[in-house]
Amino acid sequence: MSSPSHMVSLGGGHGLYQTLLAAQRSGAEQISAIVTVADDGGSSGRLRRELDIIPPGDLRMALAALAGEDPVGDLWARTLQHRFGGTGAMAGHAVGNLLIAGLTGVLDNYQAALDVVAVLTNSRGRVFPVVNQPLEIEAEVAGLDDDPRVMRPVRGQVAVASTPGQVRRVKILPEDAPANADALDALHMADLITLGPGSWFSSVLPHVLVPDIVQAISESDALRLVILNLSAEPGETHGFSAERHLHVLAQHAQSLSIDRVLVDENALPSQSERVYLQRAAQVLGAKVVFADVRVVTEDGVAINKHDPDKLAAAILDIYREFNSAEAHQKDISPDRSS
Amino acid sequence: MSSPSHMVSLGGGHGLYQTLLAAQRSGAEQISAIVTVADDGGSSGRLRRELDIIPPGDLRMALAALAGEDPVGDLWARTLQHRFGGTGAMAGHAVGNLLIAGLTGVLDNYQAALDVVAVLTNSRGRVFPVVNQPLEIEAEVAGLDDDPRVMRPVRGQVAVASTPGQVRRVKILPEDAPANADALDALHMADLITLGPGSWFSSVLPHVLVPDIVQAISESDALRLVILNLSAEPGETHGFSAERHLHVLAQHAQSLSIDRVLVDENALPSQSERVYLQRAAQVLGAKVVFADVRVVTEDGVAINKHDPDKLAAAILDIYREFNSAEAHQKDISPDRSS
Repeated sequence: MSSPSHMVSLGGGHGLYQTLLAAQRSGAEQISAIVTVADDGGSSGRLRRELDIIPPGDLRMALAALAGEDPVGDLWARTLQHRFGGTGAMAGHAVGNLLIAGLTGVLDNYQAALDVVAVLTNSRGRVFPVVNQPLEIEAEVAGLDDDPRVMRPVRGQVAVASTPGQVRRVKILPEDAPANADALDALHMADLITLGPGSWFSSVLPHVLVPDIVQAISESDALRLVILNLSAEPGETHGFSAERHLHVLAQHAQSLSIDRVLVDENALPSQSERVYLQRAAQVLGAKVVFADVRVVTEDGVAINKHDPDKLAAAILDIYREFNSAEAHQKDISPDRSS
Repeated sequence: MSSPSHMVSLGGGHGLYQTLLAAQRSGAEQISAIVTVADDGGSSGRLRRELDIIPPGDLRMALAALAGEDPVGDLWARTLQHRFGGTGAMAGHAVGNLLIAGLTGVLDNYQAALDVVAVLTNSRGRVFPVVNQPLEIEAEVAGLDDDPRVMRPVRGQVAVASTPGQVRRVKILPEDAPANADALDALHMADLITLGPGSWFSSVLPHVLVPDIVQAISESDALRLVILNLSAEPGETHGFSAERHLHVLAQHAQSLSIDRVLVDENALPSQSERVYLQRAAQVLGAKVVFADVRVVTEDGVAINKHDPDKLAAAILDIYREFNSAEAHQKDISPDRSS
């Protein structure tokens, strides 16, 4: 009961990377990462287009985060993350992206390829693409026209992340891509599920646009924890409050039910902001928990990155509090059905 | 005594690949491959130029040949050899070339990178670049001018292999590249050394243009075996007889001393050709041995490829005959010094 037996983290990019480092440090017995597959930029986007595969970059980062903390795991984590230099066609390609693409070509199966890399890295967990096909993001964006009421579609992760307009809503294409059955299995076995942090429209919301994923989260008995970003991101969530992040989440997944929202304690100094955030969390069925989770450098500078040790401690506190509250509730109403 | 304790094979490309398969099947306890690094074509050449590394292609093929004959070795051998499809910048790149290049970038050491891949593939041996820097081949070529006496320099492996002229002589640049110390150690420990088969001017002769390599071979007590090509190659050895292959070898390495030359028994049907070949071998201190070593397809068609099982059997026969002859010689002249 002291550490999660199976922690499942949904997200993508650097936010998921930090969360998976925290998952390792939380002592979770089993860790699964469920990863977005809508990236179309950089090394990942080039491989996606050239080889007609799911973009490997976010999967690679998750595998690197889960690599065993031993010399072999460390060597392979560094190799997965290594980017070629030079000024030619290879420049900027991450070795891990190429390895995942190559193994996928040999095995003709994304999951088998990812599991081979997990073995290679002495991984502490498994990594699952949320769906077994590449996705595209399409956003409705305001502010791209003289008339501010006009919405325009903007398609592609890079385009959405860098639009000068305001993103109102995103969808995934194809809209009916079936969830990866292995990812659903992991959710069904989880006793702790995290969503976020990460680029809100391109790494977090795409997960809840897959109906089976929302259903699996909402029906789960696990602690379901949304980890909010430390700040709005330039580009897709420019100017967003913490509250608005939750509003947008609820708007994109109306049947989503969660338990807790973890927010950095220094992110919302005013009491009124905290009250608004609490109200937004209630729409999703959740309570807000504040904790110190931000990286502070040796010089005392707070940066926009979750500290894996602090995040692990905060997640464990919430996990234990949630389970003792659940146990108490079961104690007083043993016939409770959810 | 029945199988070699340490077999060291020098060469490159497909010839070395087949020899290393034969080495595995010979039951050699330890196998080392010493590999040319002068390739400038294809995936290997592109990576060499872009990343300023030794061309990885011949090293990759040697590692694939030495991969363990088990499911893990087989998966990684196939992955090393897998070439990307598509029509983009990745098309034609072999995954193993990228992996070797990436590990070299991370470890900043060619040999450490190759040894990591050897572990990955459950390798039966180790692979050594002949020198620890990329080499260039420069050939003196006749027949490129109206005046047939005029020689012209042709530089680069691809250019040499595809020149319409006649290659007379090759050199490596830089001419004084020091031999890889690990490769020399392997030669010193060997009880069986093979040279060839392979592209004569671009995969075989470059080895004997490194003085320390010639010296290590010539001073060795091991059985030193040259394995001749099954036929002349279009391009660099067009029209060459078996005898001329040996003449060219002796001309490029005047102090080279070897023991046996293995020739396919169907390659030289006439008795006079066999006599000429024997004379050419004597210049190098060697005897010629004929054996059936060619692949014959199920349809009975002989193709220009060494059959690993036949080659292993022929090598073992020569190894045993050589050692019993040596033992006999020691018996009658115990104070022999070489």
